[in-house]
Amino acid sequence: MQSLQQKASEWSGVDQEDAFSIDEVNLFEKLGLQTFINLSTDFYTRVYDDEEEWFRSIFADSKKEDAIQNQYEFFVQRMGGPPLYSQRKGHPALIGRHRPFPVTHKAAERWLHHMQQALDNTTDIDHDSKTRMLNFFRHTAYFLVAGNDLKSQSQGAPPCKNGTNKPAAE
Amino acid sequence: MQSLQQKASEWSGVDQEDAFSIDEVNLFEKLGLQTFINLSTDFYTRVYDDEEEWFRSIFADSKKEDAIQNQYEFFVQRMGGPPLYSQRKGHPALIGRHRPFPVTHKAAERWLHHMQQALDNTTDIDHDSKTRMLNFFRHTAYFLVAGNDLKSQSQGAPPCKNGTNKPAAE
Repeated sequence: MQSLQQKASEWSGVDQEDAFSIDEVNLFEKLGLQTFINLSTDFYTRVYDDEEEWFRSIFADSKKEDAIQNQYEFFVQRMGGPPLYSQRKGHPALIGRHRPFPVTHKAAERWLHHMQQALDNTTDIDHDSKTRMLNFFRHTAYFLVAGNDLKSQSQGAPPCKNGTNKPAAE
Repeated sequence: MQSLQQKASEWSGVDQEDAFSIDEVNLFEKLGLQTFINLSTDFYTRVYDDEEEWFRSIFADSKKEDAIQNQYEFFVQRMGGPPLYSQRKGHPALIGRHRPFPVTHKAAERWLHHMQQALDNTTDIDHDSKTRMLNFFRHTAYFLVAGNDLKSQSQGAPPCKNGTNKPAAE
């Protein structure tokens, strides 16, 4: 069986090494806190205004300000800065925390479409940093699609009333 | 509804700040790679030799050497060292990767029992570092119990053949 990271690489087209090239430089020191805040603010402004209702509705139960803070605190922590996210919320637990959301291939592509535009629109992100971040985001988006697929596996699901773990769709 | 981190704090008795006091010092620089390897080797030797069959069997499908490497690479990465884990396996995704395992309160306590003994048995871990690590482990163990509980929620489970999402146990 393919591992989560193998699926992420295959589906995203980004191999493991490129995905985690964010760790070869300290992007937080290079870009600074305000750049990360600007990036996440631009990104979620696009998401919450998305003309595609199916995508916009995924975020309907969260406040925009909370979504922005959760995201930039995670990015800062993961890209060499202080552990802002864990101080406030604990482990990132990316798959666990995305569990309520339908992270499909189509949703991953829409997320990446907005993030690509937000990166282009945020000043002070140099070309090299942008490439590293895009590879990380692309690989991570598909890592979460792979994590989302775990939900439809019978393992771990409560037993059905017919006494099996077989879902109706099988 | 309580968040994962609220449940983790309540059940473990370790608040968020104490759990992440590992971030106030660089434990990797303080203790060094070999200490982490020794700790995980000691820990899994206890686990794989556990007289409690129900606990030992949780690990039966994994090779001991792999379990050791996965653990110390994650600890090193999370406690201030190089991102060994992500270079090889991608995001830690603690809840997602523990999904196949029955992470119950009882299993968390057994895990912590062995880790407490492994910490006591590993030389070169000073009292202050040990306290920080134990708080982190205790909180994280119960964070994973909270994550495990998500599996029994109907959300995300495949529909049962009776056409509902209600598990038989309800």
